[in-house]
Amino acid sequence: MLEVQKKSFASHVRELQDRITQELLSLDPSIKLIEDPWTRKDFAGDEGGGGITRVFTGDLIENAGVNTSLIYGKVDPLFSQKIGGSGEVWATGISLIIHPRNPKAPTVHANFRLLSPGSEDYWFGGGADLTPFYPAEEDFHHFHQQWKEACSPYGCYEWMKKECDEYFVNHHRSSERGREMRGIGGIFFDNFRGPQKDIETDTQMVKHLSEYFIPSYFPILKKNIALPYDDEDEDFQLHRRGRYVEFNLLHDRGTLFGLKTNGRTDSIFVSLPARAKFTYCYAPKKGSAHEKMMEYYYPHNW
Amino acid sequence: MLEVQKKSFASHVRELQDRITQELLSLDPSIKLIEDPWTRKDFAGDEGGGGITRVFTGDLIENAGVNTSLIYGKVDPLFSQKIGGSGEVWATGISLIIHPRNPKAPTVHANFRLLSPGSEDYWFGGGADLTPFYPAEEDFHHFHQQWKEACSPYGCYEWMKKECDEYFVNHHRSSERGREMRGIGGIFFDNFRGPQKDIETDTQMVKHLSEYFIPSYFPILKKNIALPYDDEDEDFQLHRRGRYVEFNLLHDRGTLFGLKTNGRTDSIFVSLPARAKFTYCYAPKKGSAHEKMMEYYYPHNW
Repeated sequence: MLEVQKKSFASHVRELQDRITQELLSLDPSIKLIEDPWTRKDFAGDEGGGGITRVFTGDLIENAGVNTSLIYGKVDPLFSQKIGGSGEVWATGISLIIHPRNPKAPTVHANFRLLSPGSEDYWFGGGADLTPFYPAEEDFHHFHQQWKEACSPYGCYEWMKKECDEYFVNHHRSSERGREMRGIGGIFFDNFRGPQKDIETDTQMVKHLSEYFIPSYFPILKKNIALPYDDEDEDFQLHRRGRYVEFNLLHDRGTLFGLKTNGRTDSIFVSLPARAKFTYCYAPKKGSAHEKMMEYYYPHNW
Repeated sequence: MLEVQKKSFASHVRELQDRITQELLSLDPSIKLIEDPWTRKDFAGDEGGGGITRVFTGDLIENAGVNTSLIYGKVDPLFSQKIGGSGEVWATGISLIIHPRNPKAPTVHANFRLLSPGSEDYWFGGGADLTPFYPAEEDFHHFHQQWKEACSPYGCYEWMKKECDEYFVNHHRSSERGREMRGIGGIFFDNFRGPQKDIETDTQMVKHLSEYFIPSYFPILKKNIALPYDDEDEDFQLHRRGRYVEFNLLHDRGTLFGLKTNGRTDSIFVSLPARAKFTYCYAPKKGSAHEKMMEYYYPHNW
């Protein structure tokens, strides 16, 4: 049973990768797409699967990465111990990040993955979170509403929303105001098995959730991608992208895990924005839309 | 004896801060200087010293930070254990970073510090390293020659040069070519006491070394700060600044220690460049000066 579901989830993420690729290509005709298929040797030096890195750069989409992988075989004994397994691993997933050039169009990140430590065990991880740079509250409602709807058959919205608010935090930027997030949240889950611990049910659930990525984000992207903006809008965006870099390099478990396990640095770093700014004691202008935006980087009820 | 030397080193770093400040102000008349004095409560909530953060932004010096601090009093017991002390600490030092806007003018970092764990124990740390973006080999010789000369009375150049080459490495960017550094090295030392373990001798030595910072760097800065440059030069600089950000957030012990011990985030992050770029599989143009520059980011004999 496990084998059937693993294959089914693996082909789902590949197919989702193709659909998101099509969305990006049709949105921004200027896009240059680099596709880098890679293969992996396992810990014993045997064939160990691989992946497809897709990197996009264009006039509207400044940089984006939409990656899938399917890896298997022997793993480092220390890592195997950590995942409670038999010395083997089987894992597949999709991971993506989209950084539009226009500061009025939000950055987004999502991933959905299945890992099995070489036995009947398995767990899912994933989620999606939005990083806007302009306070268009109706868009924020749209994004969160979609994930609420996605979660509603499973009653998982409350805790997945909370996990997201707690995960994407720049702890070193926290203050008396609270815990500053890199964006405005979404949903997040890790080491997940459903209450019935039934892989067929859980595969269906995570496939179902992943289907909400395109409708949660692309309508917002299309609506804002051509809006006029000025230097101040861009300056705020570039500074918030600086915070994005801080989060990814200081706190993101996936990034640090990937680097520590000798992952392919350039594939891991497709998550970084093409340009970023850092300024001592940066703060947006008093009374500006950007100052208002800052308030959304703390947990809200949507 | 310890007290006299501590005071003498503390006033030396303050005085060096003022001299470097003057050098920057006279080099770039457009500079805006922000001076932020701060005070610190110790672990018990008592007066614990403080520091002076000086941040510079100008047309020629895009951003720079020249900071001193003198802290004392009770520390977190875990930290005290680590430094083998009595629950107290006394520390002073100068830490600085200069990011010129012109890609032909190198970025530089230096620091010199004395720490005593509340007893007769003490140790020094510090060094200076250069990050150029254009292959002006005579400048690189000048920088390293100055540090060779600085070290010559103490016979410490060889090991301090080696420690520097081994410390400022972007381990996640290493390849069959070798260990890629963030720049071209310089000198580095940590937990240092001289062979005689005599604080008077060692204070004299580190003061002597620190005197070489201005002559090692400012002649190079003045020589290159007004050279013409093009978009390609700047693009290479901004990507290497991206690597600088990667090093500081992923590997720099001072940065990570500061953030973990609840240091002042904005003072710690004055080390980050104002602007940086990140591009998937970035490489300079074949046959360009920038491609040649890449070779210098691996250890050399100077």
